[in-house]
Amino acid sequence: MPGTVEKKLADLGIALPAPAAPVANYVGFVRSGNLLVVSGQLCFDPEGKLVAQGKLGGAVSIEDGQKAARACAINVLAQLRVALGDLDKVQRVVRLGGFINATPDFLETPKVMNGASDLMVTAFGDRGRHARTTIGVAVLPMDAAVEVEGMFEVS
Amino acid sequence: MPGTVEKKLADLGIALPAPAAPVANYVGFVRSGNLLVVSGQLCFDPEGKLVAQGKLGGAVSIEDGQKAARACAINVLAQLRVALGDLDKVQRVVRLGGFINATPDFLETPKVMNGASDLMVTAFGDRGRHARTTIGVAVLPMDAAVEVEGMFEVS
Amino acid sequence: MPGTVEKKLADLGIALPAPAAPVANYVGFVRSGNLLVVSGQLCFDPEGKLVAQGKLGGAVSIEDGQKAARACAINVLAQLRVALGDLDKVQRVVRLGGFINATPDFLETPKVMNGASDLMVTAFGDRGRHARTTIGVAVLPMDAAVEVEGMFEVS
Repeated sequence: MPGTVEKKLADLGIALPAPAAPVANYVGFVRSGNLLVVSGQLCFDPEGKLVAQGKLGGAVSIEDGQKAARACAINVLAQLRVALGDLDKVQRVVRLGGFINATPDFLETPKVMNGASDLMVTAFGDRGRHARTTIGVAVLPMDAAVEVEGMFEVS
Repeated sequence: MPGTVEKKLADLGIALPAPAAPVANYVGFVRSGNLLVVSGQLCFDPEGKLVAQGKLGGAVSIEDGQKAARACAINVLAQLRVALGDLDKVQRVVRLGGFINATPDFLETPKVMNGASDLMVTAFGDRGRHARTTIGVAVLPMDAAVEVEGMFEVS
Repeated sequence: MPGTVEKKLADLGIALPAPAAPVANYVGFVRSGNLLVVSGQLCFDPEGKLVAQGKLGGAVSIEDGQKAARACAINVLAQLRVALGDLDKVQRVVRLGGFINATPDFLETPKVMNGASDLMVTAFGDRGRHARTTIGVAVLPMDAAVEVEGMFEVS
């Protein structure tokens, strides 16, 4: 039976997909003690298609970038569910790292990354309030618009 | 009463500002056990103005970049003080991540980042000696020249 | 006497060098409890020469990038040996961060980073399977083609 966090996501119309297989020789998450580290997740939708491809400041609009960041966050949650069985075991979202595929003059990366942060706070409430670092990068795998990684305290 | 670390900073003429409010939907730090993770801090001065804006290798000189990195480090310390009450509770600066807003041909990012690292070692002595990763990024929020994040062991 | 991991590396013809001195004011690793954080390592060979210099998507081929990533991983292992005395004390490779010096249109960063990931899995087996984040960055120190950082659970 899904826990309270997953029910809240379902109420929002969000069904967690099976996590995307890592695109190379690594795994989706590693647990060490009460810390769970989730690999950088690209902005795949549940069908495995990138929600936005290209650069913010170029072909990708801020709105589409936000949708991409939200998709990354959903994929982070999907990894968490596989790792923990139940998202209610997340005690705290410790940190999100946000990587925005951006042109050198695009200054709105935090606004884009909020697509991921907002979902975490919606899903977990106060436990979802996290430390964060957002940077604009030269390029991402498959020209994905956004990549998000996470660190979690879990029980 | 300020602890020994804060007194040392005061001797250097450094008064810790109230930390900048996060520029989006996240918090300045999260503690998990004895680890404290501080969000990426931009190079704001105590008045909330960016110490350096633009790219290293472009409009920003190495010297101004170093001042910017130092300002980021001061803002990291300001977050620590809010988190801990007393900087003397920092047992070790575990890691700094340095993000330098740079043109693709700017090769002196470590020299710039030393503006942050030097301050940590000055403030904390041997406990301030940290692991570090420095990269040149395509762009930073608000076109800030430098962003620094940190991980700390605290008591 | 070298442990089993170091013997396996020797069988592959890999002798761990003395770790490169940090290029600035920081240290190669910091341990906090059972976590060991290794600073970003550049792609130096045992003679201190960069294995590949320049950008993926530019002067550096994917194959040379992979060799560079592998060299970074060897330098991470060299730091671990200094930290632990014996690589067999690594309980788990928790996370690798891969930073690829890339042109804005280079999409094969994961393939490059596999040069580092594959070596970890070869060296440590199942304990080497790690979480990972790979990004294409604007520039790296000394125009190194690749930089790799790591987080490890150790005993």
